[in-house]
Amino acid sequence: MRDANFLTDFHHLATIGATENSGVERLATTKDDKLACGWITAFAVKRNWEVRIDGIGNMFALVEFVSGIPCILLGSHLDSQPLGGRFDGAYGVLAGLHAAKRVASDETSPIFNIAMINWFNEEGGRFAPSIVRSSDFAGLMDEETMLKVKELAGTTILCALESIGNLGNDEHPKVAGYAEIHIDQGRILEREGIHLGAMDYSWHTQKLDIEVLGEQSHTGATTMADHHDVVAAASKMVSLVHDVSEKFRPEALVSSDGQLTLKLNFPVMVARRVHLVADLRSASPQIVRAARTALLSDIAQIANDHDICINVSGFDGREIQYYPPDGLELTEKIAANLGPSVRRIRTRARHDLVVMNRIVPTVMMFVPSMDGVSHGEREFTTDVDSVNGVRTLASVAGEMVNGALATNRCIEAQFSKVGL
Amino acid sequence: MRDANFLTDFHHLATIGATENSGVERLATTKDDKLACGWITAFAVKRNWEVRIDGIGNMFALVEFVSGIPCILLGSHLDSQPLGGRFDGAYGVLAGLHAAKRVASDETSPIFNIAMINWFNEEGGRFAPSIVRSSDFAGLMDEETMLKVKELAGTTILCALESIGNLGNDEHPKVAGYAEIHIDQGRILEREGIHLGAMDYSWHTQKLDIEVLGEQSHTGATTMADHHDVVAAASKMVSLVHDVSEKFRPEALVSSDGQLTLKLNFPVMVARRVHLVADLRSASPQIVRAARTALLSDIAQIANDHDICINVSGFDGREIQYYPPDGLELTEKIAANLGPSVRRIRTRARHDLVVMNRIVPTVMMFVPSMDGVSHGEREFTTDVDSVNGVRTLASVAGEMVNGALATNRCIEAQFSKVGL
Repeated sequence: MRDANFLTDFHHLATIGATENSGVERLATTKDDKLACGWITAFAVKRNWEVRIDGIGNMFALVEFVSGIPCILLGSHLDSQPLGGRFDGAYGVLAGLHAAKRVASDETSPIFNIAMINWFNEEGGRFAPSIVRSSDFAGLMDEETMLKVKELAGTTILCALESIGNLGNDEHPKVAGYAEIHIDQGRILEREGIHLGAMDYSWHTQKLDIEVLGEQSHTGATTMADHHDVVAAASKMVSLVHDVSEKFRPEALVSSDGQLTLKLNFPVMVARRVHLVADLRSASPQIVRAARTALLSDIAQIANDHDICINVSGFDGREIQYYPPDGLELTEKIAANLGPSVRRIRTRARHDLVVMNRIVPTVMMFVPSMDGVSHGEREFTTDVDSVNGVRTLASVAGEMVNGALATNRCIEAQFSKVGL
Repeated sequence: MRDANFLTDFHHLATIGATENSGVERLATTKDDKLACGWITAFAVKRNWEVRIDGIGNMFALVEFVSGIPCILLGSHLDSQPLGGRFDGAYGVLAGLHAAKRVASDETSPIFNIAMINWFNEEGGRFAPSIVRSSDFAGLMDEETMLKVKELAGTTILCALESIGNLGNDEHPKVAGYAEIHIDQGRILEREGIHLGAMDYSWHTQKLDIEVLGEQSHTGATTMADHHDVVAAASKMVSLVHDVSEKFRPEALVSSDGQLTLKLNFPVMVARRVHLVADLRSASPQIVRAARTALLSDIAQIANDHDICINVSGFDGREIQYYPPDGLELTEKIAANLGPSVRRIRTRARHDLVVMNRIVPTVMMFVPSMDGVSHGEREFTTDVDSVNGVRTLASVAGEMVNGALATNRCIEAQFSKVGL
């Protein structure tokens, strides 16, 4: 019955912002984001949970066993990429909500409260940078600066949040631990037929902001010698970024280009500027650095060949981050009790977890995703795998509210807080 | 005095839609386009010339020596590319206007009337395809179809023309000949120190519409093997289009990509579709065909390598078009009389002339352009060269209204029309 309820809710949530091809498009602060948040609020209010929204749009549904003590936070994000899938984010939010419900109905004398979180703008589909909200939560970014971030059309986060009624001023609940479940963003679990992944570390990542500057010209009337063709130059760089992974053993480096924008982008005109973002990720920081060095050298050659200027700057570099071994062991123990097979796994992608891991004990789990698809309408995880994930998350959360993973210092602080 | 007046007017016109870097941005149907058209109207009205606007926004300033007889048409276009130059188009319109004025004041008993034309939307910066208006004029396209053409933001040509008051319903004046002057879109005149080019033919051109279809995915989380990376594939194609010219002798083929659009174009996402337009031009149709064949073969290989789908269709193919030898000889004779040096020259770019040449005798001239720049803010032609061009155009127009280039049949028709 519990599993059936979860599946009913999950499939209902996927109708909010549904696309023609079974995906979801629900960018942060859009009408559909508002509807999805409203659905979560109704779920919480019906159960007399407290709903809070902080100053950057993060939304909490809090179950207080004892007033004022810290909580174990479960969640992910309801926002999707444009033409995204049903699972990336929303599965983790709903799994968190149902896990909290199970813990709330099962537990009698927990050490911590429990809460669900829907992080604001994880995908960054409307407002870059992504992951602003958990960065703010962990004190890594300044809230005021973030509220001024604008989308291309000029709307600030502040105005966008106000427009859907999600600009709160509630305090964050105090947090003693964090757990998240997500679809696998690769084929490992699917290929190996394993039900659960326990995340042990995140890859080293590095983005390169590349600006190619030439001279606007006529596509047809300009001689080849007179072109300062930034489109041709930028295209060579995209190829280099794609091919640089071949310098290393297969899949040791993942490299690609996401956004690529011509200015101006018109027919019969070679653009004056191309802007692109390269994304390099590896389990080995040395490989990322070697790839970067190789690219910078090739880029200099391209600039010279095309007689143009290329500016490159690195941003969003993130070191490898390891997650608590006792969290992994807890996941493995619970999976062994419940039945699903489990293996340790690393993530190439970032998650809110990456930020939370700096401040509290964390657990992250993956469930299999067909063909490893994420950020696309074709995302698919079976009901069986979905349900296994929710069960495991609920059990992990149950242990965590009872003090598993918490440091002694942390637990003592809670006892003193409630006067024990 | 006449030359000074021309220069004053030209430099004034360049202030309408002026950009920070001495260029002009005056897309068809914008406020600045309206202002520029208004300036032309005032010029004509002040001299009691008749202003007509047809059903697709072409604007005429007509000097009638004898009511109802056909005219020699002089002109070009006031619209520019986005961040375009002061000369491409506007120079030809203003030269036409001043040449008409000189002919009107000098001639006593011409065989034809004279008129200036400002062609609508030559550049196609706002509405594709470009050159719609002269195509309509020559009966090559259907006016009703054209009025429904939309820009990206959804406005139709019909609505855009109405919004600036330029949707007319006047009849075209009958036309007996056409002459246009334009800046050189290459360095030939500048390099050779020659004042005037007389255009003898236009290059063979072919555009390729290329659609690359893959699967949207996460830039970082997707393994290299699982990417169906349309951005990498499209970039290889841009490089191939650029490099295919190297298969032939230098400058025998001009090849480049203009518009290139990702769908969706977001950070942390590899697009699902890239659309691009390749532009191939040569004096040799065989070379264009050989380049196209080579590209199609390479494209098939890229589709296979990246496991994606690539659709290619040719459009806007134009055969070489030759211009009347007696028009070239007339230009050369007049230049010899007036002083400027002249050489025959071909055009890689299309002009309204290309269309008009199918229905009436035509003459096209070029003046030197610094570094061969066109479609860019840096366009520059000296005052001396500009003035030489206007003088020559006025003299050519003076001969044409007296019957030069006209066929006997054409002249007889005019005599019968006015009852002689």
